Parts: sequence; C-alpha cells; structure tokens
Amino acid sequence: MNHEIVLLSGTSHPGLAEAIARELGVRPGIRTITRFPDGEIEVRLDEPVRDREALLIQPTGPPVNDNLMELLTLADACRRSAAARITAVVPYFGYARADKRRGRREPITASLVAQLVEAAGVDRLLTIDLHAPQIEGFFRIPVDSLTAVPTLRQAIRERLPEDAVVVSPDTGRVAMATDYARRLGLPVAILHKQRTSGTETAVTHVVGDVRDRPCLIIDDMISTGGTIARAVEALLGTGARPEIVVAATHGLFVGEAWKTLGHPAIRDVFVTDSVVPAQSDRRLKTVGVGPLVAAAIRRLLGGGSLSELYHEVPDFHRLEPS
Amino acid sequence: MNHEIVLLSGTSHPGLAEAIARELGVRPGIRTITRFPDGEIEVRLDEPVRDREALLIQPTGPPVNDNLMELLTLADACRRSAAARITAVVPYFGYARADKRRGRREPITASLVAQLVEAAGVDRLLTIDLHAPQIEGFFRIPVDSLTAVPTLRQAIRERLPEDAVVVSPDTGRVAMATDYARRLGLPVAILHKQRTSGTETAVTHVVGDVRDRPCLIIDDMISTGGTIARAVEALLGTGARPEIVVAATHGLFVGEAWKTLGHPAIRDVFVTDSVVPAQSDRRLKTVGVGPLVAAAIRRLLGGGSLSELYHEVPDFHRLEPS
Amino acid sequence: MNHEIVLLSGTSHPGLAEAIARELGVRPGIRTITRFPDGEIEVRLDEPVRDREALLIQPTGPPVNDNLMELLTLADACRRSAAARITAVVPYFGYARADKRRGRREPITASLVAQLVEAAGVDRLLTIDLHAPQIEGFFRIPVDSLTAVPTLRQAIRERLPEDAVVVSPDTGRVAMATDYARRLGLPVAILHKQRTSGTETAVTHVVGDVRDRPCLIIDDMISTGGTIARAVEALLGTGARPEIVVAATHGLFVGEAWKTLGHPAIRDVFVTDSVVPAQSDRRLKTVGVGPLVAAAIRRLLGGGSLSELYHEVPDFHRLEPS
Amino acid sequence: MNHEIVLLSGTSHPGLAEAIARELGVRPGIRTITRFPDGEIEVRLDEPVRDREALLIQPTGPPVNDNLMELLTLADACRRSAAARITAVVPYFGYARADKRRGRREPITASLVAQLVEAAGVDRLLTIDLHAPQIEGFFRIPVDSLTAVPTLRQAIRERLPEDAVVVSPDTGRVAMATDYARRLGLPVAILHKQRTSGTETAVTHVVGDVRDRPCLIIDDMISTGGTIARAVEALLGTGARPEIVVAATHGLFVGEAWKTLGHPAIRDVFVTDSVVPAQSDRRLKTVGVGPLVAAAIRRLLGGGSLSELYHEVPDFHRLEPS
Amino acid sequence: MNHEIVLLSGTSHPGLAEAIARELGVRPGIRTITRFPDGEIEVRLDEPVRDREALLIQPTGPPVNDNLMELLTLADACRRSAAARITAVVPYFGYARADKRRGRREPITASLVAQLVEAAGVDRLLTIDLHAPQIEGFFRIPVDSLTAVPTLRQAIRERLPEDAVVVSPDTGRVAMATDYARRLGLPVAILHKQRTSGTETAVTHVVGDVRDRPCLIIDDMISTGGTIARAVEALLGTGARPEIVVAATHGLFVGEAWKTLGHPAIRDVFVTDSVVPAQSDRRLKTVGVGPLVAAAIRRLLGGGSLSELYHEVPDFHRLEPS
Amino acid sequence: MNHEIVLLSGTSHPGLAEAIARELGVRPGIRTITRFPDGEIEVRLDEPVRDREALLIQPTGPPVNDNLMELLTLADACRRSAAARITAVVPYFGYARADKRRGRREPITASLVAQLVEAAGVDRLLTIDLHAPQIEGFFRIPVDSLTAVPTLRQAIRERLPEDAVVVSPDTGRVAMATDYARRLGLPVAILHKQRTSGTETAVTHVVGDVRDRPCLIIDDMISTGGTIARAVEALLGTGARPEIVVAATHGLFVGEAWKTLGHPAIRDVFVTDSVVPAQSDRRLKTVGVGPLVAAAIRRLLGGGSLSELYHEVPDFHRLEPS
Repeated sequence: MNHEIVLLSGTSHPGLAEAIARELGVRPGIRTITRFPDGEIEVRLDEPVRDREALLIQPTGPPVNDNLMELLTLADACRRSAAARITAVVPYFGYARADKRRGRREPITASLVAQLVEAAGVDRLLTIDLHAPQIEGFFRIPVDSLTAVPTLRQAIRERLPEDAVVVSPDTGRVAMATDYARRLGLPVAILHKQRTSGTETAVTHVVGDVRDRPCLIIDDMISTGGTIARAVEALLGTGARPEIVVAATHGLFVGEAWKTLGHPAIRDVFVTDSVVPAQSDRRLKTVGVGPLVAAAIRRLLGGGSLSELYHEVPDFHRLEPS
Repeated sequence: MNHEIVLLSGTSHPGLAEAIARELGVRPGIRTITRFPDGEIEVRLDEPVRDREALLIQPTGPPVNDNLMELLTLADACRRSAAARITAVVPYFGYARADKRRGRREPITASLVAQLVEAAGVDRLLTIDLHAPQIEGFFRIPVDSLTAVPTLRQAIRERLPEDAVVVSPDTGRVAMATDYARRLGLPVAILHKQRTSGTETAVTHVVGDVRDRPCLIIDDMISTGGTIARAVEALLGTGARPEIVVAATHGLFVGEAWKTLGHPAIRDVFVTDSVVPAQSDRRLKTVGVGPLVAAAIRRLLGGGSLSELYHEVPDFHRLEPS
Repeated sequence: MNHEIVLLSGTSHPGLAEAIARELGVRPGIRTITRFPDGEIEVRLDEPVRDREALLIQPTGPPVNDNLMELLTLADACRRSAAARITAVVPYFGYARADKRRGRREPITASLVAQLVEAAGVDRLLTIDLHAPQIEGFFRIPVDSLTAVPTLRQAIRERLPEDAVVVSPDTGRVAMATDYARRLGLPVAILHKQRTSGTETAVTHVVGDVRDRPCLIIDDMISTGGTIARAVEALLGTGARPEIVVAATHGLFVGEAWKTLGHPAIRDVFVTDSVVPAQSDRRLKTVGVGPLVAAAIRRLLGGGSLSELYHEVPDFHRLEPS
Repeated sequence: MNHEIVLLSGTSHPGLAEAIARELGVRPGIRTITRFPDGEIEVRLDEPVRDREALLIQPTGPPVNDNLMELLTLADACRRSAAARITAVVPYFGYARADKRRGRREPITASLVAQLVEAAGVDRLLTIDLHAPQIEGFFRIPVDSLTAVPTLRQAIRERLPEDAVVVSPDTGRVAMATDYARRLGLPVAILHKQRTSGTETAVTHVVGDVRDRPCLIIDDMISTGGTIARAVEALLGTGARPEIVVAATHGLFVGEAWKTLGHPAIRDVFVTDSVVPAQSDRRLKTVGVGPLVAAAIRRLLGGGSLSELYHEVPDFHRLEPS
Repeated sequence: MNHEIVLLSGTSHPGLAEAIARELGVRPGIRTITRFPDGEIEVRLDEPVRDREALLIQPTGPPVNDNLMELLTLADACRRSAAARITAVVPYFGYARADKRRGRREPITASLVAQLVEAAGVDRLLTIDLHAPQIEGFFRIPVDSLTAVPTLRQAIRERLPEDAVVVSPDTGRVAMATDYARRLGLPVAILHKQRTSGTETAVTHVVGDVRDRPCLIIDDMISTGGTIARAVEALLGTGARPEIVVAATHGLFVGEAWKTLGHPAIRDVFVTDSVVPAQSDRRLKTVGVGPLVAAAIRRLLGGGSLSELYHEVPDFHRLEPS
Repeated sequence: MNHEIVLLSGTSHPGLAEAIARELGVRPGIRTITRFPDGEIEVRLDEPVRDREALLIQPTGPPVNDNLMELLTLADACRRSAAARITAVVPYFGYARADKRRGRREPITASLVAQLVEAAGVDRLLTIDLHAPQIEGFFRIPVDSLTAVPTLRQAIRERLPEDAVVVSPDTGRVAMATDYARRLGLPVAILHKQRTSGTETAVTHVVGDVRDRPCLIIDDMISTGGTIARAVEALLGTGARPEIVVAATHGLFVGEAWKTLGHPAIRDVFVTDSVVPAQSDRRLKTVGVGPLVAAAIRRLLGGGSLSELYHEVPDFHRLEPS
C-alpha cells in the first residue's frame, strides 16, 4: 500500500519523535494534546489522516498509565478519522515484565495491555528489545520487536577493554548476553541468584571466568538499578577487575537509581533514548534509536524485510525444550 | 445466580469501598495493590474469587488514568482467576464528557473507555449520574446508571429556602434540573450562553423567573468550578437573591476550584462522596452514596429491580425528536 | 487506496442515488432487488465488486425495518463478493432518536443498529445531521456525520426576512440553532417546555426576544410535525410576528403531519431530500443533498478532509461539563 | 441454572405465545411494544428480567423484517437489563431459504440473520423444521431445531387412506418425506424436475409408484403454493388417485396461495400454527405447536434431553458423501 | 490492491502448488516446513511476505488434521509477518461432509473448521466443488467455490458414448448432475435409496431411463468408493449397458477403494488432482485443476469476475422452498 | 454454579481419563469417537450435556494434530449441545515450546492453539507444568497450570541419595529446579551451553558444585532425550558421581529416546502419566497425575482455591527485570 504517511506522537518523548521524523525526512504530524485540570487527556488531530498510514510514536515509560492512555486515545482518533492503517511505535513497552502470573491470583498486565491496544484499533506494533519474546504472542496483530544491541555495540566498543567479559545479570538475559558477545567477539558469564537450603540469604553465583577481567553487564532495562548493583557486587566478589561497563536498551533510572549505581567500579552506563530517563548522571551515555526506528519504518512502508533488525538466534534449537 | 460475593476495591477511594461494605454487611475482599518505583501497578488478589460474584469498587476520578488502569488490572486478575461475574462499580465515570467528536478529528474517549472495560473482562457496570445517557449505548454489557438526586435532595432540603428556584447552568442539564424540581416541588430556570451575532462575547440568558429568589444551581459534576461561577454571576445579574445553594453529584474541585467558587452568595455546596475531592472548603457538604450503591448491589444480587434507583423520566416523549 | 468505485443503492430513495451518481459522474451500479410474495428481500449484484470501493446509498426512513434489512443484505453481498471496502451512505439514519434508555428496561436501538451494521460487514458510515452526536460512539468503524445546514441556509436566505430570529424548538437543538444563526448572522431563541410544579400542563417558555419578529424554527427532522406545531403556538403566544419559516434536515411528514403543520403563519417548510417524505404540501421546499454527499464521497475517496462538511463548533468548550 | 423464567413475546403471533405460556403454566411477561407513526419499533419491558431466563417468542413470518427487528430489540432490551440468558424461540425462521449463494453475487441472508441475532445478544435459538440442517452451522450459539412431523402425523393419520404414498415434492425434502413415511408406515415417492436437453420446459419426473394411490405431499413450508400445485399436476399426470393430502410445518399462504392450491384433488392441507397464515381456507387444518415448544422449553430449563424432539435419522450414513 | 504476490504451499500437494505457480508464471515462495520427532509442525517463511498478497495452497485431504494444522500455522506466520492479505487456496476442503448435526449431539465440524480458519487470520478462501453450498455461510470471509465440471467435461467427452445418461448417485448431487448434463447435452437419471416399510434393506430406485444406455456417474468426491459401487449395481440391475464412466472432482481412494470399484463395467474413473489419491489404478484418469485455480487467482488479483468459474444455476428458483 | 458434571475424554489417553474419573468417583461420560477411512474424526455425545459442567480430558501429545482436533470437535459438540461450561483438561499441552518467534517469519503456534481452543468454545483450561508461564497470557479464558513437582518429589525421594544436587539442564528451567530443590532440601546446579568466541562448538558449563555428588536432572518434558543426554555428559565431565536420576513432568520418549538416554549412569527416569510415552524402558518410573488433576477439578467445581497446586514462587521479585 502506498499511502501517504503521517507521523504523530504523544507527549511522552518529543525528542525521539523529532529524531525519527528527521531521519525519515518527513514533517511531524500536527496534533494537539491537552491535559484538563482534572488530568483527563484531550487529543485532536490537526491534519487529515484519512486513508493515510498513521505512525504513533509513544514509548510507554513513566508515567506509564498516562502515556498508555495517550497512545490509546491517539489510536481511537486515527481510527475514527479513517486512517488506512495505525502502527503504534512503542520503543519501550511498559508493563512488559508483568508477562505471567506467578502462581497467584494476578493479572497478566502485558497481555491485558495487548488487548487494550488492539481494542483501540491499532493494526501493528513496533517495539525494541521486548522483555520476553513471548509477549508477541499476546497480540493477534503483527509485532516487530527490533534489537538495539548492534546500535549499542557501536558505542560501547570504544569504551570497552579488549579482554572484557559480557555478563548476564540473571538467567533471563542469557540470550541477550550471547547476542552481545557474538557481535563483540567476547566470552559470556552468567550470574545466578540462589538460596542455600535452610538459609534466608540468596547467594549470587558467577558462571564463567571473570577473574581479573573487566566486565560488560548487559540488561534489557534499568529501572531502580538494583539488579546491576547486585551484579557488580557479585562480580567484584569473585575477583573481576573493578572496571565495569553497563549497557541496557531502556534506561528509566527511577527513584534512587544513580545512588544505587554509585559504585566507583562502574565506569560507563550505556542506554538508548528509547525512553526519557527520570534522572541523569555524568556516567550516562545515551545512544539514539532514531535511526534504528526510522530504518524499520522505511522497511515497513516499503515492504522490505525487517528480520535483519531482529535479534540473531543461533540455529541449534528446539530438538528438546529450550 | 447465588454466588458468594467478593468486594474488591482499587485505591482510588478506600472510604467509599468501606462504606459500601459496611452497608452490605460484608467483609472487604483482601487484595494487594502496589506501585513500582516506575509507576507500574501490581495487583494481587489475596483470597479466592473463583466462581464468586466480584464487585470492583473504583471511581475513576483524578488521577483518572491510574485509577482506570487499576480497575482494568483488577478485572483481568478476576477473569484469570475465574470469577463467576465481574461488576465494575464506578460511581464517578471519568472521561464521560468526552462523549462525542465535535466536528473534528478526535477520539470519543468515553466510547474507547467502554471498549477497554469490556476488553478487560468486565461483565456489567454500575455508575451514578452518567454525564450523558447515551454513554450506556457505548457498552454492550449491561449498565446501570443510578441517580443521586434523591440522596442529595434529602440533605439540601433543610438548607434551602422555600421560594428557591432550581437552576440548570446550561441546556445540557435541563433533565436533571427538572428531576430535582419535581422532587423538591420547585420551579426551574435555565441558563443559556449565547453569542450576539458579530460579537466575541457570549452572554448568558436566564430562562425562567429568578428575580428576588434564592437559587439552587445543580449540575452532574463540579470540576474547576467555572460553570457554577458563571451561573452565579448571571443569576445575580438578573436580580436573583444572593442566596445560592449548589448541588452536584460528583465534586472534583480541581485546580483553583474553591477560589473560583469564592463568591459570598454561594452558601452551601452539596456533593456526594462518589469521588475524593482534590480540595475541600468550609462550605462543602458531602452526602454519602454508600447506601445508594449498596441498595443497588443488593438488588443486582437478589435479582430485584433497579429501575426505581434511576432518574424519573416524564412520559410525554419521542413523538417528535426530543 | 485507489480502487474503482461501485455505487449501489437500495430501493429506499432511487432519486437520491441517481443524483449522487450524476454529481460524481459515475454510472450507478447494476443490482437486482426483489421482494418475494412473503416479503423477504432478495439482492443480487449484477456487476463485479471484487476489490472495489462499494458505496451503498440507502437512507433508512420509513419503512425503516425493510430499508435497514436491504442495507444489511447489500452489505453482506458485497462482503461475500470481496469488495475492498463497504461504505454505507445513510443520509437519514433511522432509529437515531432511540439513543438512550430513559430509566427503564428498554433497548438502545440506535446502538443495536450500529452493531447490526458492523456485523453485516460495513466498514464506514456516511450520514447527515445525526440526531445526537454521541451516536458516532456507538460505532467502532469511522462515522462521518455531515451537516446540511449550509445547504439549507442557501435556500432559506432568500425567503427569510432580515430581522428574523432562529428558534430552537427545545433544549436539544441549541447547537444546531446556533450553527444556523452564525451562518445567517441572526440571533437565537430557545423554547423550553416546563411543568409548573403541581400542575399537569407543561408550559413552553421562550428564551430570547421574538416579539414582533419573524422566526426560523429549525430542527434535525420533522416526523409528525407536533414539535413544530407546538413551537409555532408558543412563539405566537409570546408575540412573534405570524411569519414563520421552518427548516429541518430530514422531512418524513408521516401520519397527519401536514394537517398538524396547518397554521397559516407557517410560510415555508424547508427540508432536504435525505429521505422521501410520506406526503407533500404546497409549502414544502426541498433542497437536494446530492451535491453535499457527492462532495463528501469525493473526499472520502481522494483522501481529502471532510471536516469542513461538519458542523462548526465554537471553541470555548469543556472546561466544565458541557 | 435455576433462574426464574420470563416469557416475552413480540407481536408476530400472540396466540402462539399464549398457548406456550398456558402449556408451561406460566404468566406471559408484561412488555409494551409500540410502533411510532414513522414505523419505528419501541419496546419496553414492564417487569424485571435481571438474572432471569428470558424466552422471546417470535416467529419471523411476514412481515419478516419487522418481526426480525422486534426480536432483535427485545433481545437488546433483555441484554441491557441483565437477563441471565436469552433464548429466541422462533418456530418459523424467516429467510431460511436464503441459505446459499447460487453462483452469483448474493448475500447468504440466513447466515447474515444468524449474525444479527448473535450481535443482539441472543444466547440460544429454538426453532422448528429448519429449511436446511446446515443453517445450524451459521450460528455459534446452540440451536435446537425441533421437528413437527410427529405432531402433524397425529392429525393426518385419520384423514389419510391406508394405501397412500408420501411424496417429496423435490429432491431437497427426501429426508423429511422419509421421516413421515417411517412414522406412518408408508412408502415414499420423489418428484424431480428436469429439463430435457435442448428444450426450455422442465418435466417433473415421479420416482416411486403412485399409480392409483392417494398421496400425501409433504414440505417444510407453503408460501405461494406453487411447489405443491406443480406436484399435484405431476402426480395426477402419472396416474395418482385424485385424493391428495398436503402437510407442511409452516403455512404462510401468501399472495394467491389458495387459488394456486385450488385443484379439487387436494382434500386437506395440514400445517402447524408456527406462523400466522396470510389467508385461510376451508381445507386448512391447523395443528398447534404450543405443546411441542413447551415440551422443549421444559427440557431446556430442566436440563433434559431434547434429542427425541429432533428428526430421526437412519444410521447408515456418511461412509460416502451423503 | 496491487500487492506483489507470494505463493506459499503446505506439504499436502507439492505437485499442485507447482502447477499453479507455473500457470501463473510466478516462482513458488520459499518456506521451510519441518516435522519434529514428536509430530509437531514447524513453519518458517524464507522470504518476505510483508504487505504482499499471500496465497496458501493446501488441500486438506488425508491426513486431514495435519494438513489443516499446516494451513493454520502458515496463516499465522503470514499474519504475524504482516502479509497484506491471506488467501487460503484449499481445492479439496476436508470435513465438508460434517456440515450438519443429524438430530444428535455432534459438532458441526465444517463450521468449526471455518471458525478455525478465520481465527488463524485467513482473509478469504478459494475452493472447488464444495460438498454443500451452505458451507460458504459458515464463513464470514469471502469464499469462492469454483466448479471443476467444465474441466472434467473436456476430458470425459472423448471417452463417453453419445447416448450416455448422466447419473446422480443420490438426491444430494442432482444439481451437479444437471450441470454436467447441460454442458454435455445429455439426459439425467437419479438414484434414490429407499427402505420399503417394514423391511431392513434399502432398495435403490432409478429415476430416469437408463435401459441399454451407457452411464456417466458423477459425484463431488470418491472416498472409499462405496457410493459408486452401489450405483453401478443399481444401474446394471435396471438394465443399463455395462459401460460406465465415473467422474468426481475429488478422488481420495482411501482404504479398499479400488477393490470396491472393481466391477468390470466401470471403464474409466475421472477425477481432478485437487487432492493426492491414497492409491491409484489403471482406470484412473486425472485432470489437472492448476489452470482453473490459476485462472481464479488471476481474477482475484486483477479484480475480474469469478462468477463464470462457478456452477451455472438455472433461473427458475425459490418461488417456493427449493 | 452447581451444575452436574459430565467427564468426557478424547482418545489420546483413556487410562488417564479413567483414573481421573475413579478419583472423582464419577462415571465417565459416554461418547463415540470414530475415525473415517479418510482420517476425519467423528464425535457424538451419547448422553446429555445441556446445562452441565463438561470436562474434556485430552492431553495433546503425539499425534498432536489429531489429538488437538479431537479436543476441538468435542468442545464444538458440547457448545452446540448447550453445556453450561466447557473445561479443557489438557495435562500435556502440545506446541507449548512454539511460544515465540525467534527473529524469523514464523507462527507462534502456542498462541495460535490458544485462539483455536477459544474459537471452539472452551471456557477454561487446566494443564500441568506449562513449558513457559507466559503461555497463560496467550489465552483470554482462565488457565490453571498445576505443578507435578510435589507429586514427583514423593516418588523420587526414596530413590535419591541424600547428598544429591538438583540440576537444571539449561537456563530456562532454573525456576523449576529451584522448586524441586526447595521441596527436597537440596542445592541447585545449572547447566549453561555456551560457544567460545570464534569456535563452532558449544561447551556446557556447570554452575554449582556437583563434584562427587549424585545428580537429579529435572526438566518439564523429555521428547527425544537429547537435552538430558547432553546434561549427563557435562555433569560427568565436571566430576559428578555416575549416579543420576532424571525427573520430568511429561515423558514423550519419541524416536530413539531410550537409546539416547542409554548412559549407564542414568539410574531412574521419573515422569508422570500426563501423556502416553511412545516407548518405555526398564528404568522408567511413572507417577500418576490422576489424583492431582482430580484435586484440581474438585476445587474448580467446589469453588476452592487452586493456588496451592501451583508452583511456589519466592517472594523477592520484580524490583528489577526478572
């Protein structure tokens, strides 16, 4: 479909929307978003979207509920104004960690959000480094989950000693750590938190050799910084060289994050600008995802293949449960 | 269906939830609602809801998006935990005023919210004095919209001079004003804002005789107080006695509301506790809707008729467009 | 999308369908619609609709159920024959007044009809001067509600004395009256029916100055003529000059309508041809909406903006409940 | 579920609704159905349906569209008033013959009606002798299609000579003819219309021996009487005794039906009262289906098995395409 | 829509997929379909389908459940990879005979399959000689059911004596037999199985004159051959010349089919290659449907009319139940 | 709801269905399941399900597509026969490993299956040790995923040396290994497969101390045995004592599984009877899940809490991405 595109953004990350527009060489669509004194969001599209390809740029970082609702109202406005297709571009997808019930009476909020997004009329979703790949299956619309690993790798490489080890801070990030390692030509180490039977305290084990080596701790996101701080402690306790680089796709840095990340061994913290951080720090290095998102949009519209913007997956899988 | 009931509430109005539980003589259901440092809501039901009748008490006043999302996650948790039926009890229904597009590319947010609520698994809705009766039609599930007019009338009566006039502050509230008037045995006056052709300023006309009479201005909700303030000005300008009582079902009082309502002619402001007001004032009189909601729930569960808790509607209608 | 269009019509208003085709410069699509002796409708499309833009012209005036069913079967035929998109063009939308329950156990038939239309595969709706703007929210597909006010104004202007007043016959038509008044440069008056407390009879009040002035009573539709007749009586009773023009978008004139409208003060009755009137009269002046609908369709297909064919709405809204 | 039942009927067949109520020993539910002067239907339920089992009695014979719309609005009213379950009791299901496209661009109206009925909130359907058994598959809700053959057989038996032959008027009714024949202990003959190659006229062949024997022509419905009249002609032409009984479940008798059925060989015409006939005749014998429907409802509510109220099907089937 | 097409096939009939591709002059799309040791199907699309017109070639002959699941997973892969439209090309539609409940507690599996196909994201269906035309009504997406009769007629003609009779093996195939007869200029005979009252054995009657004439027995499908074998026996018993040709669109030939069809009077058995036969035989003549399917696809894509690829239907229908 | 229950089973695991019935003290429901010679499944329910609680016992082990289709047709039969509620009891849920796209154009078959199950009318799902907890989020109906860990632990305990270590064969099973360890009072070790940069071969690292200790390798399922065989090799290579016990919930043992598991260090292989193994072996010890499933069903029906039949989850979670 060769529809004209209209790039609309919520208020959650104006800088990113502009960067994407600039990369694509298109003018940002004109819309008015107002907050009433009682907090209700009012949206108005100030140019036609009829039979156009509408792209809604809105990461759902904090305040997540407001940003989500803005996205939903933008989608409803586009649908009622007869947009040809509505693509939600949500570089950071909030509530992604709420992807399962853990043996308790809970919602699966990430699945609920998928249903809300579809109920509002969104036709497809573009996101980056989704917390769990299964979240795609919560949707019935097409989902493209890009990876920011190559983007971050570029920036990290020059700050990273040659003998570094890529560290997954828990068993859930092993696939991502392996992807980094493969692209950087480095080995992987894995941290695993474990309680000794009978005791209350969990001890973090380090799998892989980190002795006397600098470390690159990776993660999909940094929220309060606690996971990284515990990883640093475990690595140093096992003899790693106090020269640690941290990389994560999404950098929220809420609460006391920078205090938590205060250990002097942490040299640099690399994140993308997928979301606006609550607070910044001298050690924070931000890499723009505008080019990545723009490249994906160009392929979305031109019919090209997005799969090279996805995570690379090794080919020996699923003969047994993986 | 004779399912055991479980009364669960979000965090938007704990007092109301308790009042309803007390009226019904049931123990409030135990649930944990947490906010992560990044603002995400986490919900856990700490007692079984399987095959129970779940009632979710959650007015969606400010912060509307957070309160709405809490309601939706509670519903998702109940659905996944196999509740027999999920009734959302939303005494104040946020976004109700966004019930139409006004010739522009806009969402119809009240209709969107209806779809979100249904997508989350809610089976029916109980609310009070919905801004427009058409909003029921946005839903495919049953909606019961109760009226708080009899409740407020009780409280107002003793503070209201006998020769008062019930005033609708604009043409949209005439039905409600008529309902008050009928129940109080008083006449009605209507305000209507109108621009003289060619001028910029809108003049408010007063329909009905208010000269030298005290007034009861009614409305479905008070948000910033502006509508009421303009009504007071218009009434006094037409010769009304400076003895004004205000009554509204939902009292938000956001921003500078009490300053806006500062005119000394305003003696009392009656609202229900359907929502927690942002700020209070010496003149504010609050009437509890706990008994009203509890009466409705009792009928919902016992199969009784709710229609006597609705607005009364005169019977000469719809031979011509109404 | 640049699909070839095919313009199909039901049997409810052949003249209008032809007028629209003529305006658009397209040949009406060939279809056969038969009524079996038992009243069942049979529809056959006699030319391909596959991958075409199907426009179904069918106002749902009386007999409303037959006309609605014809529309639904036409849509089903188009869907099963793989039309690219199905637009229902329903200049007069029957059952629009059934837009709410009035405190009683009733259907919301306008909302039901919206669901039926969507169930039959209609992708979007084009209509004129919908009875209540909230009806758009009953739909999940895009709805474009055009206004015939500018079209009627053209015709009215030459028959209207310069000192006329635009009259809204009740509080529900104030927005429409204001739109007429703005476009004609005239003042507005509002009628409001009110029962004096304790009495049975409702008295109609006139808001605004009509003394010795000719009046233009406006409405969205005229069915039996009762509303207009009562308005005429009230206006003359308040001293209006017995020189009254009536304008409504939809003119059904069912039952004894012309007898009801027999008062000699009524000089002209302007309506559009959105629906075929049950009976006509010497005073009836009909303005064609073919050009308006054709203009909208042209924009629908060309991707242009329809918003200038909507009602104009003043910009000071919704700080308080409107 | 042991919900109280409420038996509501549309206006299409008051006598049948009463008969069913009488058989069940329940009071008919009170509702008001009005037709506005413009033909719109207005429905109001005058007693509670909340958490009750609602049974809507409404055959959709002529005027089919009005009767269908009445059914849909009744269902919408029940749904919005929170009925526990809505069962549509539609003894004659209009549009059943429109069950396929015949190589042309047509709707499948019976399938469309199934979707409309589901969209209006109906939970299950009870009907009699559905024109084609596949129609059940158009629905996703449970459908119970009862048979009136045993009911009619009772009445027919005493009027039928012992040496009669059961005649299927075309190849589509063979299963029904076989069911009659089995229950009456009679042989079957089949009529089959066939055009000789090269000619325009179709000749009706008679399969089975009818020479000198009286005939019972059966069908699911009689509309204009044409099929029966042609069958009579073919039977007499093949030497059948001019002593013919006709039996059909649904007797519409529209248009000139009785004139078409004027042949003196036709002695009796048996139908049920599933629908109100347009015209009657001296030879018409009507058998009530009230007891059959009541028996089905009793089982629906008591959880009993309905399958013995269905057609009996021989057991040698489907090893090859049937 | 002028999307590029991508032709993907399951593993059920590689030869047919190639034939269709060859006819269309397009390269077959590259995909990998694997079966895990536990029987699970794994599908991967090895070229982009984004915004392309995806055609999935997969008849659902035996093993029907595996072939159906392959079709569904292919559709899911296309949907998640954002194909513009997904057309299932299912020349033989398995489970078509399960199109009704026969008075028993059964599924309607053909209707269930329609729902599964739609749930997997298929947008339209192309099939050949569907067992019952009502099956189209089980779908809400467009269904095109082509006829292979003209294709088979070409091949049959030269092997068929001039004085042959077209025989419908039961009353369900009369329409198809009539279509053959019309295209071949031959008369029709119909077989009808009937139990004499009181006996256990069903006798097959022959309607139409077959004495001393060669026969063409037609059917939509041959599975175990039983229906054809019984027809041969009945025809010879009535004096038909022992010179019988058989034609069916779908030739499964499962189990002992060729043994069952062993009677020497059967000269030729014509089928299409819509499905891969379980076993073959010297007398089997297969006609390719590649050109027919390709012609349909060309019209699907070019917007042309498919109706001339449908069954022809005589025009004297539905004045009475047909 | 106190509906009578009816326990129906497919043909995939008759023994388990009987065991569950025996535990519950109910008679298995009578149904007929036939396979036609062409492989199509035919289902018939031989006793009423109307308004009953239908439980469909059917693990979807090999042949997965046939077993899945049987489940879907059983559900469709129950739905059309008006069962009050349909619970699919699927102890082993096939296709669970297909829970994500891995950067490629693939289906998410587990999500597709969830949609198929819902499309067929299933109201809730009961399963055991689902491969990934996120799969619950693919469903909109309630899912209860029980754990067989306590059941297996009982059996394992007596065969397990006191100094054993619980081993997770990869990073995906750490949660399950931890659950076993906690319940057995043993430590955990984790295997992690890793490619050294630049080489082709992946080396399996062992995290945790296994030197000279016997091991309990756990997994959710054993299909071909490859994962376990590689784990055994790695453990012995790291100095574990050649005394290994294996435990998995689901034992498929397809292909050459027992040959692959031939290493003499493997003493016992414990699985449940959730699925029928393709082949057995002297070392195989099977523990029945009948009591577990029956306990869950009893709570499902009695409204009791299932959560104690779920996995236990430690409470320090989700402050950071987990």
